[in-house]
Amino acid sequence: MADQTSPEARTPLDTGVPPQTPARDGISRRALLGTAGATGLVLGAAGGAVGYSAAPSEATPLTSVGASMAMFHGKHQPGITEGLQARGHLVAFDLVAGAGRKEAAALLRRWSATAERFMAGEPAASDDTDVARDAGPSSLTITFGFGHSFFARTGLEKQRPVSLDPLPDFSSDQLDKARSDGDLWVQIGADDALVAFHALRAIQKDAGSAAKVRWQMNGFNRTPGATAHSMTARNLMGQLDGTRNPKPTDADFDQRVFVPASGSKDPSWMANGSYAVVRRIRMLLDDWEKLSLTAQENVIGRRKSSGAPLSGGSETTAMDLEKTDAKGEYVVPVNAHARITRPDQNGGAAILRRPFSYHDGIDADGVPDAGLLFVCWQADPLRGFVTIQRKLDRGDALSKYVRHESSGLFAVPGGAAKGEYVGQALLEG
Amino acid sequence: MADQTSPEARTPLDTGVPPQTPARDGISRRALLGTAGATGLVLGAAGGAVGYSAAPSEATPLTSVGASMAMFHGKHQPGITEGLQARGHLVAFDLVAGAGRKEAAALLRRWSATAERFMAGEPAASDDTDVARDAGPSSLTITFGFGHSFFARTGLEKQRPVSLDPLPDFSSDQLDKARSDGDLWVQIGADDALVAFHALRAIQKDAGSAAKVRWQMNGFNRTPGATAHSMTARNLMGQLDGTRNPKPTDADFDQRVFVPASGSKDPSWMANGSYAVVRRIRMLLDDWEKLSLTAQENVIGRRKSSGAPLSGGSETTAMDLEKTDAKGEYVVPVNAHARITRPDQNGGAAILRRPFSYHDGIDADGVPDAGLLFVCWQADPLRGFVTIQRKLDRGDALSKYVRHESSGLFAVPGGAAKGEYVGQALLEG
Repeated sequence: MADQTSPEARTPLDTGVPPQTPARDGISRRALLGTAGATGLVLGAAGGAVGYSAAPSEATPLTSVGASMAMFHGKHQPGITEGLQARGHLVAFDLVAGAGRKEAAALLRRWSATAERFMAGEPAASDDTDVARDAGPSSLTITFGFGHSFFARTGLEKQRPVSLDPLPDFSSDQLDKARSDGDLWVQIGADDALVAFHALRAIQKDAGSAAKVRWQMNGFNRTPGATAHSMTARNLMGQLDGTRNPKPTDADFDQRVFVPASGSKDPSWMANGSYAVVRRIRMLLDDWEKLSLTAQENVIGRRKSSGAPLSGGSETTAMDLEKTDAKGEYVVPVNAHARITRPDQNGGAAILRRPFSYHDGIDADGVPDAGLLFVCWQADPLRGFVTIQRKLDRGDALSKYVRHESSGLFAVPGGAAKGEYVGQALLEG
Repeated sequence: MADQTSPEARTPLDTGVPPQTPARDGISRRALLGTAGATGLVLGAAGGAVGYSAAPSEATPLTSVGASMAMFHGKHQPGITEGLQARGHLVAFDLVAGAGRKEAAALLRRWSATAERFMAGEPAASDDTDVARDAGPSSLTITFGFGHSFFARTGLEKQRPVSLDPLPDFSSDQLDKARSDGDLWVQIGADDALVAFHALRAIQKDAGSAAKVRWQMNGFNRTPGATAHSMTARNLMGQLDGTRNPKPTDADFDQRVFVPASGSKDPSWMANGSYAVVRRIRMLLDDWEKLSLTAQENVIGRRKSSGAPLSGGSETTAMDLEKTDAKGEYVVPVNAHARITRPDQNGGAAILRRPFSYHDGIDADGVPDAGLLFVCWQADPLRGFVTIQRKLDRGDALSKYVRHESSGLFAVPGGAAKGEYVGQALLEG
């Protein structure tokens, strides 16, 4: 960028962090420098608790909301096991005609470099838009995946995982093909909407002449600190959503969510990767909100207030599927969503749900275009999403109130080691 | 709601706050009750600093983000002088055929009751959707206004302020009439997206058979705590936006922003009210981002990094309009946006800008549908927005990079006293 006349051109010093300096103690130097002088804030580890000095101040300090930083390099890509973020973008790209393996490799290299910088709270190497300027990393994650169509376009059919075979049709699907699938998929999440937008624009710019946007969706979750304590998120139906999610502390968590480093049906480049199923699930809120609370709870099989099973207890109490009422009817109805989706009703199938809500205003009929950008993670989509969705397809009480409007299935490789980029083992294997 | 079979029906106790119990010490009981047991959080005044106990905890505490509460009752309506909120909805309604003054009065009464409850962090009086359950008030504000067309539909033409006369056409306007104007306008803002959505759905439900949605837009701002210190917000062009905003501490702030209680050209029901100009301003980001930093700074007349005038100093330094460079050219170009919008260049015209950014994905051409939901407040639109926009219309360098796509002008009456509803002096006057 020509900048001869500006005395305040964006040098590394100006941004508060030399571009090549790694983050220190889990907090980017940019965040540290931006904070210390202004507020005397005592920063803990990224993502940890933050203590305030007692001095009153009108300033809004960089709290853990801004200072939290996810790691780009690692065994797995970021954006899978981290907590839900307040803002998200899902975007799919198709390679342009003429672009192949070489262009895709260069693109993944550019994208990985951007993800590493931005997740550390640093600006673009050149021509940054400044939209995220002054903000901390804000838990930004950027995650990359490959769709079924990617492999033929790049001559890599032999490397295409069997798990990317197209999902079966489900009777409740009303899929918009233009907003489904795609050669490449990027998930962006952050606790600040401008930080997320900044990343989205950079990812689009990086695509350059190699790929163009196929579809793009925006979503959101609760803002950190808006609720009184850590709890399962609510969706736009008002339900606790994700109660039965596998937890990283579960013994079989890795086995359910991640492709093993060896010994699976997957190609070796998918070691430590995962498969993402992405569904835009419209909620028919005008219909749903007309139901009584009791009717809503019978659809789900859980109390709306607490998430407790209708058979009793608290959110984490095991559901008693056999419990009957005075009339001999099951307390948890046979078509209740939570009964049908239980792993023990589906041969052990379990998925890691990590969604965003979405709300794109009202459509031409005046009804809300709102619902869930459902994103779920699993080592094997056939044993995960497909198994559960097939069961739901045969009699889920919730199906009257939702509509699957788009669908994607993406192979998300493991995390990049230092100096490597995401997908390198595939593209240079 | 029929709820005979549910042992956990939503009683007042279940929600944590008896519906008729007023908030205490600026924090709703719901927030207090929901917090104390979980985290030992020490709550200060609403909106003030929050101190954490030293005990480590995995729980995410209800911080000032969730606990902050704006006041519904007061001299002015909320949502005008409060800080920018992380999430916003703008929605316009038209009265349905057959609905007149009586139905409008009943609607404003319902809306005011909902605004009072929700802003205190309490659920709807019945059939709450539970979408905001577990969250604090999260700085929610709900603001109501009347458009030009409202007065003929309700037989209140004689009460229509002269200031609601239609805005003049501007050469840069490309207005979509379907997304402009409206009988009634509601602005919803909150620091949590689910709290804002919860309010939007309730406001739409309250409209019932009296009014239907004409248009609705969603916006966002920075999440509290994402930046290191309190500062002027950035927009999606990366610019600091609102540097010259009048401040509540300015001697002439009230005079610029609010209709006086008497002695103005306005009808008496507008005492302590304000006029909102609402413009959906698309940013042509693909063009903007191609400019060099120097070119961008010359368009605005300020440094992008700091917001300082090109004539030197810091963001708050007065702009030296006469300063020239070695070639004798003005350092702040004659068509720079910040030069043209200065009050001393516009007969003292000043507006209180309180916008949201918006981003509705990409349009059919693959370009971002993003920009600013510009909302500005003034005692007199002719002396405020119109004066400034006329000047901009004659040669603002920024005009090549923005497009006004919709427009609305609304009379926002003063705040409701206890026991009253917004607009009561108009509708029962």
